[in-house]
Amino acid sequence: MELLKDRILRDGIVKAGNVLKVDSFLNHQIDIRLMDEIGREFYRRFQDERITKILTIEASGIAVACAAARYFSVPVVFARKAKSSTLDTNAYTARIKSFTHKDTNWAMVSANYLDEDDQVLIIDDFMAEGNAAQGLLEICDYAGATVVGVGVVIEKGFQGGGDALRENGIHVESLAIVESMGPEGIKFRD
Amino acid sequence: MELLKDRILRDGIVKAGNVLKVDSFLNHQIDIRLMDEIGREFYRRFQDERITKILTIEASGIAVACAAARYFSVPVVFARKAKSSTLDTNAYTARIKSFTHKDTNWAMVSANYLDEDDQVLIIDDFMAEGNAAQGLLEICDYAGATVVGVGVVIEKGFQGGGDALRENGIHVESLAIVESMGPEGIKFRD
Repeated sequence: MELLKDRILRDGIVKAGNVLKVDSFLNHQIDIRLMDEIGREFYRRFQDERITKILTIEASGIAVACAAARYFSVPVVFARKAKSSTLDTNAYTARIKSFTHKDTNWAMVSANYLDEDDQVLIIDDFMAEGNAAQGLLEICDYAGATVVGVGVVIEKGFQGGGDALRENGIHVESLAIVESMGPEGIKFRD
Repeated sequence: MELLKDRILRDGIVKAGNVLKVDSFLNHQIDIRLMDEIGREFYRRFQDERITKILTIEASGIAVACAAARYFSVPVVFARKAKSSTLDTNAYTARIKSFTHKDTNWAMVSANYLDEDDQVLIIDDFMAEGNAAQGLLEICDYAGATVVGVGVVIEKGFQGGGDALRENGIHVESLAIVESMGPEGIKFRD
């Protein structure tokens, strides 16, 4: 998605430890027009699939998931993060290690909002090692729901999470795949 | 907003400790059509104000803020919650006590995304004692930004947060004000 790549080149900031800061338009301040275009692009890429629900994880996935859900006309469910897996007995949970924050959380989805009739599109703003997506896939598995695909705004391709999912036969669509970043600038995968 | 009140009466669940659970449509699963109507209603109520930014707090405020921001054509900034106030040196922070979760968090907004030229509409999904809104007001104050008003989807009127803000001259618009809830059902303020 050229509009997004241009924006990353213009406003993205590369920080120590392979961190790409895009909080001026994606995950702290949100450019709502760009978000709408991102939702439209996910729709374009997954419109031939039957989708009943969009699943994401709080917090910064929510804006992206809502932007996409408007085009698909389906509900969003966002997994809640918790420090323990025992907060809710009627919920599916999965452990998620965060690359950025170096800690482990549980993701939790109420059993009321995901079941075996669901065809799920998983959406997130970022993918590095793919831990969040893996956790959401696990949750869908527990629920018996079918995962139609995974849509990511920015994939850090060099950290391998997206390719690992693809090798497992999962349909991953990333709107920008960063292949390398550093003093030489940001390079995208073709 | 009748559509919202009807939905609360139909799907809201009153739980012990003055908790109103609306996670089937507002803050775990999100009804994206209803969310759009909520955004439109905030626009209707604040359209005569000059607004440059919508400020909310993660996580469940984000969907509401984005829905409103589409109508106002302004960016969203969402405050991040943190366990300590020292995570970012270039940020405005305020302490926030959560009614629902019985703990204290810090809310944090980067100084890059809020300044004295901003005319801010604060948006949140819920208001009980008003602690989140108070924290966001503090942050706007530190930034020198002007707060145009506070928009809330569901205010629990009997917990006083909204009225305390109104008494301080703040323009608060709540789309549904719950006056009482319990075995006798949910009653709204006229």
